[in-house]
Amino acid sequence: MRLWDKGFSTDKKIDHFTVGNDRELDLHLAKYDVIASKAHAKMLGKIGLISSDETDALVRELNEIGSSIEKGEFTIEDSFEDMHSKIEFLLIEKLGDAGKKIHSARSRNDQVLVAMHLYLKAELSEIKSQTKTLFNLLMDLAEKHKTILLPGYTHLQIAMPSSFGLWFSAYAESLIDDLYFVDAAFKVADQNPLGSAAGYGSSFPIDRTFTTQEMGFETMKYNVVAAQMGRGKVEKATAFGMANIAATLSKMAMDICLYMSQNFDFISFPDELTTGSSIMPHKKNPDVFELVRGKCNKLQSIPNQLTLVINNLPSGYHRDLQLVKEILVPAIQDMKACLEILTFSLREIRINENIVEDPKYDYLFSVDTLNELVQNGMPFRDAYKHMGQEIQAGTFTPKRNIKHTHEGSLGNLCLEDIKMKMANL
Amino acid sequence: MRLWDKGFSTDKKIDHFTVGNDRELDLHLAKYDVIASKAHAKMLGKIGLISSDETDALVRELNEIGSSIEKGEFTIEDSFEDMHSKIEFLLIEKLGDAGKKIHSARSRNDQVLVAMHLYLKAELSEIKSQTKTLFNLLMDLAEKHKTILLPGYTHLQIAMPSSFGLWFSAYAESLIDDLYFVDAAFKVADQNPLGSAAGYGSSFPIDRTFTTQEMGFETMKYNVVAAQMGRGKVEKATAFGMANIAATLSKMAMDICLYMSQNFDFISFPDELTTGSSIMPHKKNPDVFELVRGKCNKLQSIPNQLTLVINNLPSGYHRDLQLVKEILVPAIQDMKACLEILTFSLREIRINENIVEDPKYDYLFSVDTLNELVQNGMPFRDAYKHMGQEIQAGTFTPKRNIKHTHEGSLGNLCLEDIKMKMANL
Amino acid sequence: MRLWDKGFSTDKKIDHFTVGNDRELDLHLAKYDVIASKAHAKMLGKIGLISSDETDALVRELNEIGSSIEKGEFTIEDSFEDMHSKIEFLLIEKLGDAGKKIHSARSRNDQVLVAMHLYLKAELSEIKSQTKTLFNLLMDLAEKHKTILLPGYTHLQIAMPSSFGLWFSAYAESLIDDLYFVDAAFKVADQNPLGSAAGYGSSFPIDRTFTTQEMGFETMKYNVVAAQMGRGKVEKATAFGMANIAATLSKMAMDICLYMSQNFDFISFPDELTTGSSIMPHKKNPDVFELVRGKCNKLQSIPNQLTLVINNLPSGYHRDLQLVKEILVPAIQDMKACLEILTFSLREIRINENIVEDPKYDYLFSVDTLNELVQNGMPFRDAYKHMGQEIQAGTFTPKRNIKHTHEGSLGNLCLEDIKMKMANL
Amino acid sequence: MRLWDKGFSTDKKIDHFTVGNDRELDLHLAKYDVIASKAHAKMLGKIGLISSDETDALVRELNEIGSSIEKGEFTIEDSFEDMHSKIEFLLIEKLGDAGKKIHSARSRNDQVLVAMHLYLKAELSEIKSQTKTLFNLLMDLAEKHKTILLPGYTHLQIAMPSSFGLWFSAYAESLIDDLYFVDAAFKVADQNPLGSAAGYGSSFPIDRTFTTQEMGFETMKYNVVAAQMGRGKVEKATAFGMANIAATLSKMAMDICLYMSQNFDFISFPDELTTGSSIMPHKKNPDVFELVRGKCNKLQSIPNQLTLVINNLPSGYHRDLQLVKEILVPAIQDMKACLEILTFSLREIRINENIVEDPKYDYLFSVDTLNELVQNGMPFRDAYKHMGQEIQAGTFTPKRNIKHTHEGSLGNLCLEDIKMKMANL
Repeated sequence: MRLWDKGFSTDKKIDHFTVGNDRELDLHLAKYDVIASKAHAKMLGKIGLISSDETDALVRELNEIGSSIEKGEFTIEDSFEDMHSKIEFLLIEKLGDAGKKIHSARSRNDQVLVAMHLYLKAELSEIKSQTKTLFNLLMDLAEKHKTILLPGYTHLQIAMPSSFGLWFSAYAESLIDDLYFVDAAFKVADQNPLGSAAGYGSSFPIDRTFTTQEMGFETMKYNVVAAQMGRGKVEKATAFGMANIAATLSKMAMDICLYMSQNFDFISFPDELTTGSSIMPHKKNPDVFELVRGKCNKLQSIPNQLTLVINNLPSGYHRDLQLVKEILVPAIQDMKACLEILTFSLREIRINENIVEDPKYDYLFSVDTLNELVQNGMPFRDAYKHMGQEIQAGTFTPKRNIKHTHEGSLGNLCLEDIKMKMANL
Repeated sequence: MRLWDKGFSTDKKIDHFTVGNDRELDLHLAKYDVIASKAHAKMLGKIGLISSDETDALVRELNEIGSSIEKGEFTIEDSFEDMHSKIEFLLIEKLGDAGKKIHSARSRNDQVLVAMHLYLKAELSEIKSQTKTLFNLLMDLAEKHKTILLPGYTHLQIAMPSSFGLWFSAYAESLIDDLYFVDAAFKVADQNPLGSAAGYGSSFPIDRTFTTQEMGFETMKYNVVAAQMGRGKVEKATAFGMANIAATLSKMAMDICLYMSQNFDFISFPDELTTGSSIMPHKKNPDVFELVRGKCNKLQSIPNQLTLVINNLPSGYHRDLQLVKEILVPAIQDMKACLEILTFSLREIRINENIVEDPKYDYLFSVDTLNELVQNGMPFRDAYKHMGQEIQAGTFTPKRNIKHTHEGSLGNLCLEDIKMKMANL
Repeated sequence: MRLWDKGFSTDKKIDHFTVGNDRELDLHLAKYDVIASKAHAKMLGKIGLISSDETDALVRELNEIGSSIEKGEFTIEDSFEDMHSKIEFLLIEKLGDAGKKIHSARSRNDQVLVAMHLYLKAELSEIKSQTKTLFNLLMDLAEKHKTILLPGYTHLQIAMPSSFGLWFSAYAESLIDDLYFVDAAFKVADQNPLGSAAGYGSSFPIDRTFTTQEMGFETMKYNVVAAQMGRGKVEKATAFGMANIAATLSKMAMDICLYMSQNFDFISFPDELTTGSSIMPHKKNPDVFELVRGKCNKLQSIPNQLTLVINNLPSGYHRDLQLVKEILVPAIQDMKACLEILTFSLREIRINENIVEDPKYDYLFSVDTLNELVQNGMPFRDAYKHMGQEIQAGTFTPKRNIKHTHEGSLGNLCLEDIKMKMANL
Repeated sequence: MRLWDKGFSTDKKIDHFTVGNDRELDLHLAKYDVIASKAHAKMLGKIGLISSDETDALVRELNEIGSSIEKGEFTIEDSFEDMHSKIEFLLIEKLGDAGKKIHSARSRNDQVLVAMHLYLKAELSEIKSQTKTLFNLLMDLAEKHKTILLPGYTHLQIAMPSSFGLWFSAYAESLIDDLYFVDAAFKVADQNPLGSAAGYGSSFPIDRTFTTQEMGFETMKYNVVAAQMGRGKVEKATAFGMANIAATLSKMAMDICLYMSQNFDFISFPDELTTGSSIMPHKKNPDVFELVRGKCNKLQSIPNQLTLVINNLPSGYHRDLQLVKEILVPAIQDMKACLEILTFSLREIRINENIVEDPKYDYLFSVDTLNELVQNGMPFRDAYKHMGQEIQAGTFTPKRNIKHTHEGSLGNLCLEDIKMKMANL
């Protein structure tokens, strides 16, 4: 069944090619189509386009369908093009003419758009919430391990002393920046597009203010052409939001993989969180972190994918936009899985405590000695030369009892201030 | 002169390869290095690391350098690696030991980072302001041309009636979404990173709260490792912010190029805004809009470029990060040029008034007729079939006096509501 | 069952996260794992690591498994990590110790790599063959419609006369360039990587020359580290090869969508190849071409996706590389589907014959008139000015009987020369 | 001076925006415009459109201009739009009417296209030659250091023994694959596009076979529309060619940076090839390799940049295509600089000889011991379990005298075979 059936049959090959995996993806979105359809039905009743009995019947049946989705019983058979066709079919089957009226004053584009907005609002909220959970864990780990030193690298060369307190809370504070973009994406999604119909509005006297409130949108996307142009754009906004979190997670995963290497040996994880090799019996591999890295790097490719698909299309709907769904929906699942597994795994992290005792890390402490010279009155540039000569000559001996006191330094992590920033989000 | 001169010479080839076009790019950033250096000098005085006379002298000389930058007289000769070396050289030349002390308790990484944050704040503000100017123009054009109809397309097929009022204000309302990301980028930039030194803080008792206030940052990036990890990240945030605006501008430019084609002939521009052909004497080409489109498409590639450069690097500074500057700074210039030229050109747009009179646009009006049938009681699905048969049979006649009344439709553009949204930004 | 089972259980969550959709994807590759396993078994026999009876038994059972794959009966249950585990399990189940020996002197990395090389060779050949079919169709269409004129555009402005002969064969000749890259990718794939084991070779005296010949590879990737580094690289090579074809198809689809618009009305397709609208009863939409465009644009994003996943990883295997499969395998299916559907649809294309009779296309012919002036002795720059003035004054009248005679022009398409180029591929 | 001057002035702002940095970029291409103009002038003489005296005069003056370019004396003043305007101006200044005739039967698009093809042929040849130089160096280093062992990693975990012989020649053999794509790009470029004029050919009886031979092209791009569609495509082909080399260089640079870290300490470079820190006097940083990595990662973004700029444009020239030049030309310079500096630096590499003596690398040798068990008759899966238990129990002792004999293994590098592959390119 196609919503646009005109009496002649489209070639089967074409049908298969154009429908793609829409039915599968729509299972993620069906819940939101039901919510929007209920709001639409109530609005049709309010403006008198259908009777209040018809409204009640439609809402009741839509609630039924909603429950079946909730229970995982809703299916979209191959004879239906998508969820919209299936839901309309069910309504007509149960309600006859009342079912036929649900599509008045709206278009399938409308339905896809509004369901997508509702879906993205829910998923962005979930992602934000998962990010906050990870943030809290990282802050706890920073507090717990704040006194344990770690070599700080620049250019992958041993540079200056760092600490696990710094390392954990650095990723935590970075996540705050990432949430600014999640919030921006949420604002883009939190605008009701319903009523744009095929992208140019409708001659029906629909009440968009009513549906905006009914569905809990902050505001509406007023201009109907702008609402339609949101297709692709709201998804890209979400992809941008995820790309930032993904970049932070990927970087942390890279650090973890490096630090687990025998050449660093800073951290480890219990056996249950590592995997083995088919030929090397000694291996305990950080596959989970490599996959977080890899999936997060793939997630960073999503904005560009979406851009390539929607770019240089003139205004107005094009079928290319259908492909956006198959790019974004699995990406959202990946994002949530990465956040979940990283939080799950990091809870089990084991820290090596005496890392910087190793003499290979002596030079870590050269700058602090240099600074002492400066604090005792030697101009910086002279102290720098003096230390350089001492190091060249091999006469430098490190003092390991370092004291860093300024805001955000290893002796003064300002964890409460960072938490306050997050609390404001 | 290099800040890290150790007494042996680096190979010239290496020197040339590593310095790149830093000197040229630094001219955009020098102003901000001076601002940050003044704040740093005052802070060094406040914590007693230098005397108040030294502070005064440094601030005075930095003001001098600032004026020379303002006047376009500041230069970075080939003997200097970058602006930081040159400015420190000038201070030492003028002030001797006091000049040598300015680099106490900071690192070049610090300087690059804080100058970049200040630069991006300024540029993001400018971009936002230019975007608002374009928004206002689009809203004025929408108001001015609100009654002129335009064919609305879906799949590039004639679909439903649109209007210039809808078209102009659609792009205006879209720009509001784009600014959410500019604001997110601004928040990322509006955090003082100064004090992270080489990325791990310092043993000096520096006062970062003081420099944060002195430079007018909303807050600081507390964690020094997080501050350093901002390198690349704050630039990518800016690139994301620009990519959204660029996408909107590119799409509008695509519409314009299409609508200027003789096959559409909806709009035109005065001769002074078009260009000719070397062999076809009749051509008046929309080069300026094609270049807006092309440059904006290039701008959409910037996030991915930055990601490729900084991705999968473990934490800590790497020289790769230097390349971020040469990607972002010209992109910012391009963004501003596109906003400016589009605003400049759109002021001169000429609208054809009787477009939809052409009989080829008759079908635009089929949906409104269908809706009338529905409003007169026929169920939607039956009316749809009826109209389909009429069109197949060639008996459909359009009614051109359309009435769309709902929020955001062509008869009710809600321009004031859209302006209110923008006003909240 | 995991090939690296060590007696303690990995957390289920980890297991789910790490396995991903490998089982599903492996169904595309299983056939090639069997081919490679047979070659490996024969080689083990040849070097005496297993007996000839064991070799025979292994080959026989692998042939059985191969048939079950061919018949679509092969399955990978959730208890198996991937096809490799399942196939090894089947061999052990049937053959006991002989089955346990098949994994001697190879690694799972080896297996994945060699199966991928074989798979890509087959798919690249198929893609090349489909491309040649499309090429032939385009050349036939060019021959058939060679006399029908079409407006040629620059800047989307009417420029100079073109023809359907030129238009069809332009895309044909472009596809030849694309095949250079498919051939390059094929060369990269046509090197036997088997024997690299975990990426560093093996202490077994394996005979890689034998397996190279047995599997029909042109040569081997000698260096075992290079062979392992091929992971990700051979897939990216394939993605590059596809991206070029995709770009050509996408551009042609864009032309088609434009030319089907009522504003151009150059071509059409039978109803069975178009789709309708849920609210606009007059619509016959070019969805199939829009999806070709969209999918081909998505295909153009694959190289960048792969780059993001594999970039900045030091040498040696990382689990990130597993993700390459889930990016590439569906992309290959998309590429083949686009080639097939485009060939299928273009066979039905209908050409409008009198396009350029419309007076709006008069200026198409201005350059030919200008050239006549030049051929009659007026210097080009003077003729250009003269024509410009005539057009400004509205006194220009076009001569539609154009004669272009040079190689590759509309009067001399050189179709045989173009076919010769393709024949050399 | 503009080739399309029509007597009214384009707005200055527009002029500035549209010209961009064309003049600067054209200095790279001017040499090739002269070559193509000479061929065009000779052809015009051959077909009698200009006299043989005019031909001689044009060729003579073009040779003059060619010499001035060679000597670096050629300039493009702001009053000229590009090199084409300047060269035509010079010819008219010197030759009067003969100069005015050079543009007969060609378009500026033609000129840009053919100059680009010639330029890319030259640059691709140079890149191939530089790549071969690097290949030879890597092969020499592999031969020189073939007996020195190196830990092989998988998942960044110590895995199996590798060697510097393997490591160097792995990158060498990888470069061969990359050159397949350079050759593919060369084939795309090695087709004469001259004669396509504005993209639709010309009514002049030009002789494209003559110009093809005159300029030394292997063949011509016959179809004039295909020739014009080559704009953007030939540049992207080149970008693909470079992206592969860049990926290999980037990966090698990543290895180098890692191996130079004190945590690995496998290799080092003389002080002259490293750089220092502004605050850490002990640092000797691998900036040059980090910049090779960063620049090569940026190079990998070029195909996507080009795709974004040219994608979804219908056929026919659009001004967007001008931007391709400013993306590609600097990228080519970067590619050559990276190849040069890497070759230059690697000549000085210093290898640490006793790396694997360190007990932390003991497990490297576990697989070889396992294999011994297998060769002595234990089924692989049993031996794997046995070794696993030994390692868990801490009773495993490594045998460091490893013997790998198969093709491409550390004991049998097959350098001559690899060289043969390269020799065939």
